Amino acid sequence: MEHSGPDTFLLAFAAALLGAKLAGEIVERLGQPAVLGELLAGVVLGPSVLGWVPLSEGILLLAEIGVILLLFEVGIETDAGELLRVGGPALAVALAGMVLPFAGGFLVARALGEPARAAVFVGAALTATSIGITARVLSELRALETREGRIILGAAVVDDVLGLVVLAVVSQMGDGTSLDAGFAVRAGGLAIGFLALALVVGMPLGRWLIGLVGQAGVRGVLVAASVGFALLMSVAARKAGSAEIVGAFATGLVLARTNRRHDIDRALKPVVDVFAPLFFVVVGAQVDVRFLNPLTPSNRTVLLLALGLTAVGFVGKFAAGFVSGRGTRHAFVGAGMVPRGEVGLVFASVGRASGALSPGLFAAVVLAVFGTTFLAPPLLKRLVPVRPGGPPRDAVRVP
Amino acid sequence: MEHSGPDTFLLAFAAALLGAKLAGEIVERLGQPAVLGELLAGVVLGPSVLGWVPLSEGILLLAEIGVILLLFEVGIETDAGELLRVGGPALAVALAGMVLPFAGGFLVARALGEPARAAVFVGAALTATSIGITARVLSELRALETREGRIILGAAVVDDVLGLVVLAVVSQMGDGTSLDAGFAVRAGGLAIGFLALALVVGMPLGRWLIGLVGQAGVRGVLVAASVGFALLMSVAARKAGSAEIVGAFATGLVLARTNRRHDIDRALKPVVDVFAPLFFVVVGAQVDVRFLNPLTPSNRTVLLLALGLTAVGFVGKFAAGFVSGRGTRHAFVGAGMVPRGEVGLVFASVGRASGALSPGLFAAVVLAVFGTTFLAPPLLKRLVPVRPGGPPRDAVRVP
Repeated sequence: MEHSGPDTFLLAFAAALLGAKLAGEIVERLGQPAVLGELLAGVVLGPSVLGWVPLSEGILLLAEIGVILLLFEVGIETDAGELLRVGGPALAVALAGMVLPFAGGFLVARALGEPARAAVFVGAALTATSIGITARVLSELRALETREGRIILGAAVVDDVLGLVVLAVVSQMGDGTSLDAGFAVRAGGLAIGFLALALVVGMPLGRWLIGLVGQAGVRGVLVAASVGFALLMSVAARKAGSAEIVGAFATGLVLARTNRRHDIDRALKPVVDVFAPLFFVVVGAQVDVRFLNPLTPSNRTVLLLALGLTAVGFVGKFAAGFVSGRGTRHAFVGAGMVPRGEVGLVFASVGRASGALSPGLFAAVVLAVFGTTFLAPPLLKRLVPVRPGGPPRDAVRVP
Repeated sequence: MEHSGPDTFLLAFAAALLGAKLAGEIVERLGQPAVLGELLAGVVLGPSVLGWVPLSEGILLLAEIGVILLLFEVGIETDAGELLRVGGPALAVALAGMVLPFAGGFLVARALGEPARAAVFVGAALTATSIGITARVLSELRALETREGRIILGAAVVDDVLGLVVLAVVSQMGDGTSLDAGFAVRAGGLAIGFLALALVVGMPLGRWLIGLVGQAGVRGVLVAASVGFALLMSVAARKAGSAEIVGAFATGLVLARTNRRHDIDRALKPVVDVFAPLFFVVVGAQVDVRFLNPLTPSNRTVLLLALGLTAVGFVGKFAAGFVSGRGTRHAFVGAGMVPRGEVGLVFASVGRASGALSPGLFAAVVLAVFGTTFLAPPLLKRLVPVRPGGPPRDAVRVP
């Protein structure tokens, strides 16, 4: 490997790792979740400031592996039975959390005179909660195993699945806004069917795999085979119209029901520690700080629009927390649904590529996605239900 | 990420992981080192047979990370003091192991009427032992901590460093074969100077880093910071004219002298388990099996030449083991030096790109590199000094 590519790549990886951990530590000492620091490290290291972490293909692929491993780990630490027990509230929160921000975004865009098709993209981009960011904050706050944590996680998975169905449907729309109901039903059925099938078929398959691996003697076969299985399920999820991370999460749920759950979890942690930071850094690196300068006149409209979209995006998801049933801290659930991420950015990209979103509208949508992402961690930290078991710090978490 | 790139990449990663572990297990049950199975899995999964693991940029970058992590781990498990104690024999083995195969390759090529410049490339491609493959086999056989294991590892590092100096010098050669002695001395001094500097400056730097990390509270900071440090040192090694893996190995030696040695080693193992297999699969995937068919007439010359080069490559390194001093199993040391790899392939590529090697000669050199790589693991397994501590299996190795 003689060209300079690998070096740039290795340096970017090193900068992302060291920057993420340094900023995470500083932010955590300031009383905020470390993930906020990792996102901010990404903004600074990304193309619009220092440029040390370019959004090259290699970096994006590594970030993708990072978030897949993260959701796999979260799945392993999640009890599928407990998750199903909060199925009703989670579904209600997911649906309210899709409808409200969609309506808000659509109306804001229409009020500003945007055509209906653009308004649909704007609204749709605000529908899906970022599972990665939500799961990471919940894990840091040790709230994954609370009732609220399960509702948030379940709702985030549901609205990610449904959000991608909405994307498939919206992308099918021509220049008009006519919807093909049959297509929508098929896409939705496929995505939900995959998840159900993955759990039903995955359980015996996972047990068989773990049994097979138990007879093997080569080093590292348990963690290597588990990660291989998670990667296959991720690609399968995507082929079924869902997201890779949904497949990885489902794999985690499945392997959590085997007798090697704790061994896999223990081995997976350092792998996640090395590769997940890159995901958060890459999310932050996608923020173009030039749009944040209000002294540039053309930025003002974009910033105002972004502010409006952040507001409706925030309020819509936060309000959705209040349908999570009795005996639940509604505000915490609402705050947990606030961060957007990958899916929102994908919506914005598809909208821009198809010409539905003008460059200014695109920038405003992207800024609103990031606005919600950066708002959520400090808010969650404030609202976290205090647990008796000690400080909410991941480093001392019991397995 | 809408394009099909990530899916192909994730599938290739999954296939490599699962294929490597499956083949490794089968081969281990047949009494051979698992790494041989991982290499064979690569041949089958690679472009010339199934094509499931393409040699795309993303896969090559991930394989690079895999071998960097592997050498980092080997460094952490190596005692720098013990390594220096075998410095004399290691240096002797390294030098003999460079001179003999170089002379053999040069003479074979000249005997077949190749020009001197081509013969220099052929000889040089046979000089460097593959640290990655050697270290992995030694680790599997639990021989890393034997006197023989240390001599092999030390000699492999030395001849990798010197091999890259030879490459720099040979690449500088014009169409003639005149050597710039000043350039050679500078390149050699830089590469060796880096290694010395990395150890001298790295020791306090590593202790400072580990001390800093010890005060941090964010999750995974120890393993993330260590890997970040290893990546930086890898790039620095390369900038100094050495190989990335030499920098990663030096980082391991340095961090092994800190009080967190065992914590880093324990956290690193599963990370290596997930990413190192890809390196061995990629090495195997570079074998083009079409050249192995003797029914194709044009292949016969290539195969005969490859056989000749494999023979001199094998005998030269094997013989070098016999200068390793008294009280050492010479044959085991010699066998440990036999596998070639990355550096040999880089030589062949540079030689082909510069026009010095004809396509047939290039293919023969590549086949000879692989010939030695596939010969070494079974031979080492046969010759391993039996240790009293139990079966030579990595899965049960004590830390």
